[in-house]
Amino acid sequence: MRRLGEFEIIDLFTRAMGGRASGVAVGIGDDAAVLRPPPGEDLVATVDAVVEGVHFGAGFSPEDIGWKALAVNLSDVAAMGARPLFALVALALPRREDPRRLARVGRGLAACARRFEVAVVGGNLTAARELSLSVTVLGSVKRGRALLRSGARAGDLVAVSGTLGDAALGLGPAAPRALLRRQRRPTPRLALGRRMLGIARAAIDVSDGLVQDLGHLCSASGLAAEVAVERLPLSAAYRRAVRGTKNPFEAALAGGEDYELLFALPPGRLAAARRSARASGTRLTVIGELLPGRGVRVVKGGGDLAVRRAGHDHLRPRGEPRFLEAAGT
Amino acid sequence: MRRLGEFEIIDLFTRAMGGRASGVAVGIGDDAAVLRPPPGEDLVATVDAVVEGVHFGAGFSPEDIGWKALAVNLSDVAAMGARPLFALVALALPRREDPRRLARVGRGLAACARRFEVAVVGGNLTAARELSLSVTVLGSVKRGRALLRSGARAGDLVAVSGTLGDAALGLGPAAPRALLRRQRRPTPRLALGRRMLGIARAAIDVSDGLVQDLGHLCSASGLAAEVAVERLPLSAAYRRAVRGTKNPFEAALAGGEDYELLFALPPGRLAAARRSARASGTRLTVIGELLPGRGVRVVKGGGDLAVRRAGHDHLRPRGEPRFLEAAGT
Repeated sequence: MRRLGEFEIIDLFTRAMGGRASGVAVGIGDDAAVLRPPPGEDLVATVDAVVEGVHFGAGFSPEDIGWKALAVNLSDVAAMGARPLFALVALALPRREDPRRLARVGRGLAACARRFEVAVVGGNLTAARELSLSVTVLGSVKRGRALLRSGARAGDLVAVSGTLGDAALGLGPAAPRALLRRQRRPTPRLALGRRMLGIARAAIDVSDGLVQDLGHLCSASGLAAEVAVERLPLSAAYRRAVRGTKNPFEAALAGGEDYELLFALPPGRLAAARRSARASGTRLTVIGELLPGRGVRVVKGGGDLAVRRAGHDHLRPRGEPRFLEAAGT
Repeated sequence: MRRLGEFEIIDLFTRAMGGRASGVAVGIGDDAAVLRPPPGEDLVATVDAVVEGVHFGAGFSPEDIGWKALAVNLSDVAAMGARPLFALVALALPRREDPRRLARVGRGLAACARRFEVAVVGGNLTAARELSLSVTVLGSVKRGRALLRSGARAGDLVAVSGTLGDAALGLGPAAPRALLRRQRRPTPRLALGRRMLGIARAAIDVSDGLVQDLGHLCSASGLAAEVAVERLPLSAAYRRAVRGTKNPFEAALAGGEDYELLFALPPGRLAAARRSARASGTRLTVIGELLPGRGVRVVKGGGDLAVRRAGHDHLRPRGEPRFLEAAGT
């Protein structure tokens, strides 16, 4: 295999990115991009990385890697109720990376960028021991209106989009196709996030696992939450996959990487929220409520399900056991 | 050594970052930052990564790593004539990283952020085999006024700030302190870049080596350039270090990582440019001119110095030979 130079690879990668978009005065190719986001709006900015062997493994196609690298960032933008505009991609790759594979990673990223109308405006290439992509996404939202984690109030409902736990069950290469797809090609809930502006009081995306992310929202809002496992939205594929297992709710509670949105919702806005979800092509399920206090309580049949070490820690290797134990109340 | 969890490390790292700055509605801690850059200005955005073993080695202190990770991005902002505002940091680290070292990396980055008035507004943490930081910087510049690579015209002077080649000679651990410092603690020429708005026609930062970066400016502007080695600005430490070596100009021509600014300057604006440099605490040296044609010609005593493979390719290992040969004309 021929070894490519830096500039050949940049060319290969950026050619896969597609054309310009509105608001881009200068895109890839200068010292920095020059951008014109919509005037009068707040800018939102987020960065996330995917690393070979940590966030993707052998089962991922190169296109999956590129898609997911961008999609996980778009999910953060969705959780703010914002619209994504621009992305910058810092690509780190082994010196002997296969250029065809790299072009396919670029195509996967470009497919996600086109699907959600994001312009890739900048990038950087460096050598590293393993393939990784750090993607920054910039978006915009009406001034002062971004959905934060901190806006919830006691009495708000906890509602979540789509279904939970599918991505975690899609980790194994032998998983059913529907679950594999949730793991490898997550769909950021951008349309839903924007429609929930003015309806939800707070939001977060479920990237590290329901209990952990709900915990972040509770901490930021100074509240506790109680959720009932019987109410968790589970897909048919999930139900089939966990049949007969010891902890059938574990993946849904602690699995991570679902990239669904979780909202704190005043009870009076539930009907409006459901309409927003339907109009966005997803559904919204109420799984519990926010209460005075602190911490997340998971109940099952009226009793507590103690959740210890629930969620996704990016510094633990994949496949390390997560602990989730049933305990009497 | 105790192993830290993800959230402990985020806390450790962000605590080192210092306080808020203007224009930050929501900083670290939500799904995305919410930002208010100055209205009516263009936004500039750039991303760059530093990777252990590629961009920094054993001689770097943790503070150096943090400083350099941000500074190399600020240099890109400087090359646009823009003012930096916000930074996002994607940190990848080995699972058994020393938390004290990490805190020191954070302090080095924070020192650079304070020095150049940048607010660190977001971040991400992931496991990886080697330590790396991908930093995104957002800045702003008067609408339509950003200094691009493409604005040069035939007849413009080629002028460069500071001195060249010091950073390349500062790679070895036994290098003199002044050269080590140029390699490990580069100073982005932000004040100079901003003062050159309306004076220079085009600009680029010298990060990959003079010949290579001047070549990028030439390509973007559709021009050729000729520079004379006798005119290269060399520090006293550089001159001492290269005394008696075979290719004394190699590091200055092809070394990379100086993070000086290179400008295309109408001859009539030279006096104004020199005043801008003085006011910014640096100096500006005219090293050649832009001409019709293509490519970069390096002359010495009237004869050509053929430059083959000049410059920094981020995918080649450090220390691989660079070729720079004298040839008859």
